[in-house]
Amino acid sequence: MKNFEEKTLSEKKEFNGKCITVSTYDVELSDGKKTFREVIHHPGGVVVVAQKGEKILMVKQYRYPIKQVSLELPAGRLEKGEKPDDAIKRELEEETGHIAKTWKSLGYIYTTPGVCDEKLYLYYATDLEFKKQNPDEGEIIEFFEYNLDEILSMIKDGRINDAKTICALTRAFL
Amino acid sequence: MKNFEEKTLSEKKEFNGKCITVSTYDVELSDGKKTFREVIHHPGGVVVVAQKGEKILMVKQYRYPIKQVSLELPAGRLEKGEKPDDAIKRELEEETGHIAKTWKSLGYIYTTPGVCDEKLYLYYATDLEFKKQNPDEGEIIEFFEYNLDEILSMIKDGRINDAKTICALTRAFL
Repeated sequence: MKNFEEKTLSEKKEFNGKCITVSTYDVELSDGKKTFREVIHHPGGVVVVAQKGEKILMVKQYRYPIKQVSLELPAGRLEKGEKPDDAIKRELEEETGHIAKTWKSLGYIYTTPGVCDEKLYLYYATDLEFKKQNPDEGEIIEFFEYNLDEILSMIKDGRINDAKTICALTRAFL
Repeated sequence: MKNFEEKTLSEKKEFNGKCITVSTYDVELSDGKKTFREVIHHPGGVVVVAQKGEKILMVKQYRYPIKQVSLELPAGRLEKGEKPDDAIKRELEEETGHIAKTWKSLGYIYTTPGVCDEKLYLYYATDLEFKKQNPDEGEIIEFFEYNLDEILSMIKDGRINDAKTICALTRAFL
């Protein structure tokens, strides 16, 4: 196998936001050629396939970057210093009002590794109990319960287009 | 269903890169509250499940943002003014040296709709013929052929973690 590694020559910080930061890098490829990389640094996040009997919990929310309502699994960003195993319990309760007794890791994914370091930890949760929905400030979210076969047909026909949702369901039920 | 739409009050351009741009927006939620959004604007891209007999074409490359080699389907960004249907033929040939006679759309996905507008168009290609690999300047790529069941087990056990790769294969073979 080829040697692929890229060596960082210099970094320039370009944008320091509340959620993301952006830097540009001069790098040296393994063949000695020089190029540059634009990188979005993201805190990472969590996603859960939460199963309640025959149903899977899903949320609908407006996604401002794509200017449309998106049907997705419950998910969210890691807060500063927060562990994924804690973040996903917080997000599930905030977005759907449910707590789960049984948790299983489904590994992780990179959402767009060519330009962003976002790493999402995936979970499968069962033994659910409803308490009370309590979304974050600035989030308007509705939650729904769907049968798995409905969800799979929405993935297939393009009514579900959110990458993390498709990946987590694939890891859970492949 | 709730009214979810968010109204843009103002935009501030934060970063103008070669691949991405970043803006921040003050927005008004449907309940009248005000908040802000950070948005990465991305040109979009293309991904292909290219099947050659029993084999699927995959590529390995170093992904600088995540500092590791990633096993993925052939994929790439749209060039300025380029149509997805043209871009995917160019990318398949550049990265794997193959051209395909038969193409089918598998719809599209959003890789990370909470913070980025990246839209990836997915394809399924068959009737492949090998010509000559010809990667972009600044790309070091190796291509491989895997049986579908090997790929599915790598998705399941976490050796494949690239979201677009998992999504396209799920759409193709679900």
